[in-house]
Amino acid sequence: MDIELYSYWRSSASWRVRIALALKGLPYRTSPVHLVRDGGEQHADRYRALNPMREVPTLLVDGVAIAQSAAILEFLEERFPEPALLPGDAHQRAHARRLFEIVNSSIQPLQNLRVLQYVDSTFQVGSAGRADWARYWISLGLDGLEPVLSSRAGRHAVSDTVSIADLAIVPQVYNARRFDLDMARWPCIARVDAAASEHPAFVAAHPDRQPDAPEALGTS
Amino acid sequence: MDIELYSYWRSSASWRVRIALALKGLPYRTSPVHLVRDGGEQHADRYRALNPMREVPTLLVDGVAIAQSAAILEFLEERFPEPALLPGDAHQRAHARRLFEIVNSSIQPLQNLRVLQYVDSTFQVGSAGRADWARYWISLGLDGLEPVLSSRAGRHAVSDTVSIADLAIVPQVYNARRFDLDMARWPCIARVDAAASEHPAFVAAHPDRQPDAPEALGTS
Repeated sequence: MDIELYSYWRSSASWRVRIALALKGLPYRTSPVHLVRDGGEQHADRYRALNPMREVPTLLVDGVAIAQSAAILEFLEERFPEPALLPGDAHQRAHARRLFEIVNSSIQPLQNLRVLQYVDSTFQVGSAGRADWARYWISLGLDGLEPVLSSRAGRHAVSDTVSIADLAIVPQVYNARRFDLDMARWPCIARVDAAASEHPAFVAAHPDRQPDAPEALGTS
Repeated sequence: MDIELYSYWRSSASWRVRIALALKGLPYRTSPVHLVRDGGEQHADRYRALNPMREVPTLLVDGVAIAQSAAILEFLEERFPEPALLPGDAHQRAHARRLFEIVNSSIQPLQNLRVLQYVDSTFQVGSAGRADWARYWISLGLDGLEPVLSSRAGRHAVSDTVSIADLAIVPQVYNARRFDLDMARWPCIARVDAAASEHPAFVAAHPDRQPDAPEALGTS
């Protein structure tokens, strides 16, 4: 099976997929899509043909495009079940997916680059206003995530085994820190983030390790 | 199995779950959570204990809470596989989940009530500004959804059988129309919406049929 990942080094959703590919030991090629340069390479005709939503990531599996990180992760889990990213018990699976979706559909969509750019261009709030917006939604979301997570967390988000929940939480915590939020307010999230971040698959998938990461970080 | 759905009549995510319950023929009780009255019943302590994100829906299954519509639908699909909401082929399943997630994570989160209220209170844009915001994100999303959908649609979103994609599309089209968008711009989405809307399970799950729908529509 030939796997190609269209990805941006600092995109949360791309990062989730990179962790899954690393955990499952699947070799793949990275095709960088720079979300800022030249007005955003995701808007180029060639990429829009693969992903008309103009979002990353897109996974090409033997030439067939799959997009949306949740759909990609479920596909990988079905085709490459080991090691499992979903628990064996139905209620625990629902809990893992709930945690994943809190980040995927209730936090990250409100603080991604596209939204921050639109808020700034529409309301002329500048970089401080963009950061205020991001901090509001990330804080609100983490306030909700913390009690749901702490109800069943072990070493990792769901018991002691890495699951899709950890794949969503680690990139979201990175974004929280980028916007200078103090993670001490969410101790369970911070602890789960720290535990997962030590895992070799999470280390390999980190933005700074990607081929499209700028050499001088923070310049793009 | 005892099933209780905490829901708001006009919430997209609640509506998706109602369709799934109707399709699978599962009896359930509705516990309305009014998102506007008294500042929003989702903020009450009793509901926050079930759902700290203060979002609807929450499904109680034998007293155990599941939240996030994607997690609820996957749970229902696993426990009650017939009729299936996901296609049998792995790539078609990925496509159905991709379509679902385009709505669930890339469109709906940007135009829900909570975001519109925040945009208005932060930038003082009034109801016209709220509507402009909603129209921008819904249009952008439907522009991206249309070509992905039309690539494999049959009578329904994925081939000729109802899938989770239809469960997401119908409520999103309802929201597009609420904000006066002309669906003629997205002919495949409009056609798929019309086909699914005739289905008895979709009819039963419509907001106007819910116990908490106002008698005079549009008053809340």
